[in-house]
Amino acid sequence: MNTSNVKKLDWKAGTLLNPVPVVMVACVGEGQNEKPNIITLAWAGTINSNPPMLSVSIRKERHSHGIISKTGEFTVNLVTKGLAWAADYCGVKSGRDVDKFKEMQLTAVAGADVRAPYIMESPVSMECRVTQVIELGSHDMFLAEILCTHVNADLVDAAGALQLENAGLVCYNHGQYQVVGGKLGFYGFSVRKKKVIKREKK
Amino acid sequence: MNTSNVKKLDWKAGTLLNPVPVVMVACVGEGQNEKPNIITLAWAGTINSNPPMLSVSIRKERHSHGIISKTGEFTVNLVTKGLAWAADYCGVKSGRDVDKFKEMQLTAVAGADVRAPYIMESPVSMECRVTQVIELGSHDMFLAEILCTHVNADLVDAAGALQLENAGLVCYNHGQYQVVGGKLGFYGFSVRKKKVIKREKK
Repeated sequence: MNTSNVKKLDWKAGTLLNPVPVVMVACVGEGQNEKPNIITLAWAGTINSNPPMLSVSIRKERHSHGIISKTGEFTVNLVTKGLAWAADYCGVKSGRDVDKFKEMQLTAVAGADVRAPYIMESPVSMECRVTQVIELGSHDMFLAEILCTHVNADLVDAAGALQLENAGLVCYNHGQYQVVGGKLGFYGFSVRKKKVIKREKK
Repeated sequence: MNTSNVKKLDWKAGTLLNPVPVVMVACVGEGQNEKPNIITLAWAGTINSNPPMLSVSIRKERHSHGIISKTGEFTVNLVTKGLAWAADYCGVKSGRDVDKFKEMQLTAVAGADVRAPYIMESPVSMECRVTQVIELGSHDMFLAEILCTHVNADLVDAAGALQLENAGLVCYNHGQYQVVGGKLGFYGFSVRKKKVIKREKK
């Protein structure tokens, strides 16, 4: 790449790591008649492979922050193009004011390992239990272990492999929701050819 | 959405949060003649808005894990379509064996606030300082404060706004690198219309 014409601007610190995931996090309070709630988050990600763990960061003032702080349980539900409108609504509105499952016509399915429900309309859901909470300033980060997953059967091919590139997942890019697009190659594609050549030489 | 035909498979726990970012993390050892190194990571994300913070999770056995553990400094560089090949190479190869900047013809630019260099060919780079390390199992998670950013001037419009949707950024989706695609709307688009109507009624 010719970089002789690249002009850089030196800016102050900002949250410019992009793209980031968009996930709908579902939870429910401890009372018997509590309505489940959903909060959409982009400050979320995988943090460990073994055991499988993820983190979600939530502002202290959010309704779901209080619920998850008490119960230590939530589900993470992936967002498709068809769910983008509902995801945005669940990120902007508060569960103190509206029943988001009802307003967005989403279906709460009882979790297997946690009391928090997962979202039927999401193609992939993960049940999670909090292991640690870290106060960072504007947000508290909830570290959580993934206990089990629920996957749409139509995304699994005949060999049993999950074809997640067919789900039309959505990411968040500097304030804009964008669909995940064209495929560039699988992990390791840059060295695969060399390996094949080496193998042939043997 | 009609969910009567949705069939769910109940799987064990897995790292199925997707899509996730792809970032090239650059670092350099403490010695005077140390060569800078790059590791590509997908277990990375924003964790706090104020102060701006991110996290990266790195396997203990990786070369960069040793360097960042000692120096507490690194840069995070966003990955475009044009950088996907180099990013994959930097994720698969080890800095113990190859000089990744040299092999991938990337340009190391001296950091302003840290000794770690950033990558000229990346459109957005963030200089980071580690605040906390959390051992999780397969990976150690490095929490870090973002100190400053470097942004390609050609991504900034006349009004000074960063147009990151024009950068052709790449995400990682269940082992596949994919370009960030079609725009669905900005944060808050699901309620914007209602707000306008309310304002007009006043």
